[in-house]
Amino acid sequence: MMQAQAEKAAASPLLVVGSVALDTVETNRERREDILGGAACFSCCAASFFSPTRLVGVVGNDFPTAHEDFLRRRGVDLAGLERVPGRTFRWAGRYAADFNTRTTLDTQLNVFETFRPKLPPAWTESPFVFLANIDPVLQLGVLEQVRRPRFSACDTMNFWIGGKRVELLRVLARVDMLLLNDEEARQLSGCASLPAAAKVIAAMGPKAVVIKRGDAGALLFQGGDVFAAPAFPLDGVVDPTGAGDSFAGGFMGCLAGAGDTSPRSVRSAVVAGTVLASFCVEDFSLDRFRTLDQAQIRARLAAYAELLRFEVPRF
Amino acid sequence: MMQAQAEKAAASPLLVVGSVALDTVETNRERREDILGGAACFSCCAASFFSPTRLVGVVGNDFPTAHEDFLRRRGVDLAGLERVPGRTFRWAGRYAADFNTRTTLDTQLNVFETFRPKLPPAWTESPFVFLANIDPVLQLGVLEQVRRPRFSACDTMNFWIGGKRVELLRVLARVDMLLLNDEEARQLSGCASLPAAAKVIAAMGPKAVVIKRGDAGALLFQGGDVFAAPAFPLDGVVDPTGAGDSFAGGFMGCLAGAGDTSPRSVRSAVVAGTVLASFCVEDFSLDRFRTLDQAQIRARLAAYAELLRFEVPRF
Repeated sequence: MMQAQAEKAAASPLLVVGSVALDTVETNRERREDILGGAACFSCCAASFFSPTRLVGVVGNDFPTAHEDFLRRRGVDLAGLERVPGRTFRWAGRYAADFNTRTTLDTQLNVFETFRPKLPPAWTESPFVFLANIDPVLQLGVLEQVRRPRFSACDTMNFWIGGKRVELLRVLARVDMLLLNDEEARQLSGCASLPAAAKVIAAMGPKAVVIKRGDAGALLFQGGDVFAAPAFPLDGVVDPTGAGDSFAGGFMGCLAGAGDTSPRSVRSAVVAGTVLASFCVEDFSLDRFRTLDQAQIRARLAAYAELLRFEVPRF
Repeated sequence: MMQAQAEKAAASPLLVVGSVALDTVETNRERREDILGGAACFSCCAASFFSPTRLVGVVGNDFPTAHEDFLRRRGVDLAGLERVPGRTFRWAGRYAADFNTRTTLDTQLNVFETFRPKLPPAWTESPFVFLANIDPVLQLGVLEQVRRPRFSACDTMNFWIGGKRVELLRVLARVDMLLLNDEEARQLSGCASLPAAAKVIAAMGPKAVVIKRGDAGALLFQGGDVFAAPAFPLDGVVDPTGAGDSFAGGFMGCLAGAGDTSPRSVRSAVVAGTVLASFCVEDFSLDRFRTLDQAQIRARLAAYAELLRFEVPRF
């Protein structure tokens, strides 16, 4: 069983390119300084429960080796993590009491400013590729280094939609899926309605579009097919940082682990992403992933199926 | 079959008490003046597809008889609709382009100001009762006129939660279910988290709580059981007025029609409410209900089941 799982998993590693950061997070209850963060870390960690994962990113010489040890223990291959002189990327933000709005207090690109992702030669054949939210120019640079992945997905943000639209469109023409939030979908498409926005975005290239809506869940559009995945309701959210990245990582890891990119498998992977995001927000930083195990994930997947179970009314 | 359906439906009529209004609605595309509105109209109309429905409300002598004719054609019993000298309740509002925020431009209570709901004697035995959003003092007055209904539900709003809390708590101690939106749930409970809010509200009396979140869907809490019903994604919303009332009406009508108040049946009824709300917003006023039929409802219920269908990921 373990052998079969390892073989299957070994067949489809996931490459993740994105930020590795030290975050300072303030909620209405607590403040945490210089904790492990960054889209690539959340995504790799969430994915690592489903598939072998490869991280491409950069840190400064102030990055604690304990964080690298943690990622390695989670099975994340760090052969693509550069360590360069200077300070690690830093982000600081504050959340409102209901966690629905956040204010960025500080962003210091530091070593991330001159980051040019360079894949270890063996990784250019990665069958699954996730381009986390970075400059679309860098995303394109990664796509030029990989040989026709089986499935590629990217994230983006308002800053690139507004400032590097041409480059972003070039990325979109080459990836299988785009994940973005509702406001970004509206900005990119010019449509207020999300189904209409998804259609416009699909016409830019990606055959699947996931619109993330925070605690309102996610919508998956694949051609004419729509899947609605509500968020898993939680009594107490501790820190929503990284929820979207954990969603993407859980999604891509599940897809890579299954080795199946059919629309049906993509729906299941969205559920995996939803559940991994729900774990992520239960603690600061990646801390919930330190104690999480597959049994807990399976239990929550079962609870999620129960959350959505209903009989069609007859009348 | 038709006979069986009629008999079953006849066994469990739904009583609805609430506002009947003439609305003026502005969207970014269009403005409509003095169109049929009011919570009781939307609720009764949505319910009428599932069960016989009884409306208790008040209108002025300016209320077009064509509106009464329409409601009667939908099978709504208007024996409890008072017509009194004066003007009908009027509401005017404007929606933002994405329909997520609305501004009330004008509210004229008119004949609604002195409304004291009085049930026709035969209606005091109504087995299903929905108290739409009105002064909790009036909701209590209705509960005192009905003899132990099988299932009662009420709606409310921020104005009563803030201004008539004691009276509202008296209502909540006596109903089986409360429907309210997320902001109202937070205000009533003092909890930012919706699952936590639902627990606090359930302790006030209602054994079921539905938290409506607009286009983010609804959450149903029944004891420890939670059901998430995402909204049905629509390409083009025309006018969201009455969506929440149509949800409540579809829900209560479905429950009354099924004659089954088990937790399983309540889940199915939430789906009916979700689907009726999705039809409501496709046109101004109650206009979509003028052409809607049971075949269209069944088709959308099937589409809704497809929207939520997934296989639990195996890994």
